Amino acid sequence: MKINGQHYRTIWLKTDDPTCVQIIDQRWLPHRFMIEEIRNLMEAAQAIKDMHVRGAPLIGSMGAFGIYLTVLNISEKSDWKKELIKAAKILKSTRPTAVNLAYAVDFSVNKLLLEKNKKGAEKAALEIAKLITEESVEHCRKIGEHGCPLIEKISKQKNGQPVNILTHCNAGWLACIDHGTATAPIYAAHDKGIKVHVWVDETRPRNQGGRITAFELLEHGVPHTIIADNTGGHLMQHGMVDLVIVGTDRTARTGDVANKIGTYLKALAAHDNNVPFYIGLPSSSIDWGIKNGISEIPIEQRGDVEIKYMQGLENGEIKKVLVTPEKSPVANYAFDVTPARLVSGLITERGICKASEEGLLNLFPENKVDK
Amino acid sequence: MKINGQHYRTIWLKTDDPTCVQIIDQRWLPHRFMIEEIRNLMEAAQAIKDMHVRGAPLIGSMGAFGIYLTVLNISEKSDWKKELIKAAKILKSTRPTAVNLAYAVDFSVNKLLLEKNKKGAEKAALEIAKLITEESVEHCRKIGEHGCPLIEKISKQKNGQPVNILTHCNAGWLACIDHGTATAPIYAAHDKGIKVHVWVDETRPRNQGGRITAFELLEHGVPHTIIADNTGGHLMQHGMVDLVIVGTDRTARTGDVANKIGTYLKALAAHDNNVPFYIGLPSSSIDWGIKNGISEIPIEQRGDVEIKYMQGLENGEIKKVLVTPEKSPVANYAFDVTPARLVSGLITERGICKASEEGLLNLFPENKVDK
Repeated sequence: MKINGQHYRTIWLKTDDPTCVQIIDQRWLPHRFMIEEIRNLMEAAQAIKDMHVRGAPLIGSMGAFGIYLTVLNISEKSDWKKELIKAAKILKSTRPTAVNLAYAVDFSVNKLLLEKNKKGAEKAALEIAKLITEESVEHCRKIGEHGCPLIEKISKQKNGQPVNILTHCNAGWLACIDHGTATAPIYAAHDKGIKVHVWVDETRPRNQGGRITAFELLEHGVPHTIIADNTGGHLMQHGMVDLVIVGTDRTARTGDVANKIGTYLKALAAHDNNVPFYIGLPSSSIDWGIKNGISEIPIEQRGDVEIKYMQGLENGEIKKVLVTPEKSPVANYAFDVTPARLVSGLITERGICKASEEGLLNLFPENKVDK
Repeated sequence: MKINGQHYRTIWLKTDDPTCVQIIDQRWLPHRFMIEEIRNLMEAAQAIKDMHVRGAPLIGSMGAFGIYLTVLNISEKSDWKKELIKAAKILKSTRPTAVNLAYAVDFSVNKLLLEKNKKGAEKAALEIAKLITEESVEHCRKIGEHGCPLIEKISKQKNGQPVNILTHCNAGWLACIDHGTATAPIYAAHDKGIKVHVWVDETRPRNQGGRITAFELLEHGVPHTIIADNTGGHLMQHGMVDLVIVGTDRTARTGDVANKIGTYLKALAAHDNNVPFYIGLPSSSIDWGIKNGISEIPIEQRGDVEIKYMQGLENGEIKKVLVTPEKSPVANYAFDVTPARLVSGLITERGICKASEEGLLNLFPENKVDK
C-alpha cells in the first residue's frame, strides 16, 4: 500500500544488496516514518522482540528472513547446521505465542537442514523467505478480492454514498506484508473507486487503531475518522455504520473469534443494530483444534505500563506520560472472544463462509476429522 | 469522602472566612491535589468554565455560591438587583447545557430579587447556596442507602467474597459534593464493611474513570482496578463482574439513560451475560419531557483535542502528547443512550424502580400528566 504516494511493503530485500533486509520500524508511527536495515540474526531477533515489526504474518516473514540472514553470516569454518538450530531457538523465543513465527522459522530450518552445503542453504533460505512472504501477500490480496463485493453491494444500495465501515485495532497491511486482513476488502474497494469511509477505533491500551490503522488509511488516501473505543455503539444506533470488519488472532474451528480486547463489545452492538459483522482472516489464523473459543483460547495479560502511560509527541519529541494515579492497580487483558453467533461471516483467502464448523469445513475440507 | 485520611467535600465555605469559598481544583487530578479559593463572580465563572469543578450537582452548587459571592462584592452604590441579573447570565453561560447550573442560579436569583436590600440578599444567598448543597449531599446519601442492599445481597450469595462492581466514567463524589451517584452505594457498602472491588473503566477520551474515579477510590481505600474501556465484556463473559452501576447525565421518563459514551456497550455486555445493570441518579437528572431517549436526547460533540492528545505526568510536569497522526480526522461524541430494556433498575433518592415510565411515576407521582 502507499505511504506519501509511494508503494511500500512492511519488509523487503534491499535493492542492489541481497545481504540486507529492510523493514518499516513501526515503533515511531504515526509520528516518524523510519526504514531500518536488518543485516544479521541479532538485529532480526531484536526487531521482532522490541516490536519494530508486529502482526502475525509480518513476524512470520521476519523470522524466515532472519534465518536467511543467519545462514549468510555463518562463518565457513563453523558447523552451519548447529548454528542454524541455535538461531531458530533465538528467533522463536522473541514472541513465544505467535504461531506464524514458529511456523515460518521451523519450516525454513527443516528444509535447510536437508541441504548439502551452506551455499545451497543460502539460496534455499532466501527462496523460502520470499515464498512465505509472497504467500502471505497473496492470501491478503484474496481476502480483499472476496470481501470487496460486500462493500460494493452496500455502495449500490446507498446509490454510491460512502460505505461506513468500522474497524478495531490494526489488522491492516502494516500487520502483514501488504493489503492487510480486515483492511484488504477496504483497500480493494477504495482502489476500485467505491466510496468508503472508515471509523477507526482508537483501540486502547496500545492504540493500534488511532496510531497505525489511521496512519495507513491517511497515507493511502482512504477517508477515515478516529473515534474512542466507546463510540461504535452510538454510531450504530444512529445508522452511521454500514459494516464492521475486524481481524483475528485466533479463530476456533466453530467460528468463535479471538481478537483485540473490545471486539466482543462491537459485535454485540452490531448484532443489536443489525449491522453486518465480518472477520477478515487468512486460514493460518484458524485453530482447528479448538471448539469453544471462550473457554479454550487463553487470553494474554500484559503489563500495567500500557494502561498507565500513553506515548505521544510533545515538541517534536516522543514522550510517555502517566495518565492514572500512580498507585492504582491495573488489569490489561489483551484479547477477548466473540462467540460465533454474533459473527455474520468469515472472509478467508478461499472465499466467505459462515462462522461455524460446517462453514469453515466447506472451504477447508482438508481439516475434516474422521469420526 | 476521604482524601489522605481526611474527610472532604468538593466545595465548602472557608472556615473563619465566610467571604471565601474553597473548592478542589480537579484539573490536576490525580497527579496534584490542589485547593483553590474562590472570592468573586469572575473566579466562580472561570472555575466552572475551565472545569476546575465539573459534574452537574457540583456546578449547580458552585453556581449558587457564585451568586452569593456576587452579592457580597457588589458595591453599596450600585444597583444590586441589576448586577445580580448580569451575574446570573455570566454564570449560566459558562456551561450552557448543564441543567443543574441554570436551575441553581435561577432559583437563587429569583429568591434574592424578593429581598428588600443587599444585606438581606447576602444572608439569603448564603442560605440558598447551603440549602442546594445540602440537598444534593442528602440525595446522594440516600442513593447510597437504597443501593447498598443490592451489593449486600450479592455479598451474602458469595459468602462474603468481594463483590465485583464495574463502573464507567466518574459519577463519584468529585462530580457531586459528597458520596457521588453511581459510587454512593459502593461507598455505603464499603463503609459498612462489605467487601467490594471496583472495575474502573478508563473512559476515553477524557479518562474520568482512570483519573478521577480511580483517585477517589484509592484515597477512600476502596479496592479497585483500572481497565481499558474495551475490557468489560471479557470480564463479564468470565464471571468477573457481579454488578454494574453507572451514573447518568439525563434519563428519559421512560427510563432510557443518556450517560458517558460507551455506557451502551457495557449495558449490552451485561445483558448478554446476565449481569445486573443499575443506574444511580438523583431525580434532578430525570427529564420528564422526553419519552424516547435515543431519538430525543441531543448528543454533544466535543473538540478533537480530547482524542488526539493525552494529558499526563512526565518528570513531575503535566504534559499533553499527540497520540494520533496529526492530520487524521476525529469524531468525539460525548454521550450515548442506553435503552431502558437493558437497564435492570434505577437507584434514586426515593428508592429503586424499574427503568420504565410506570416505575419512575410510582416513585415520583407528582410528574404524572393528566391525559
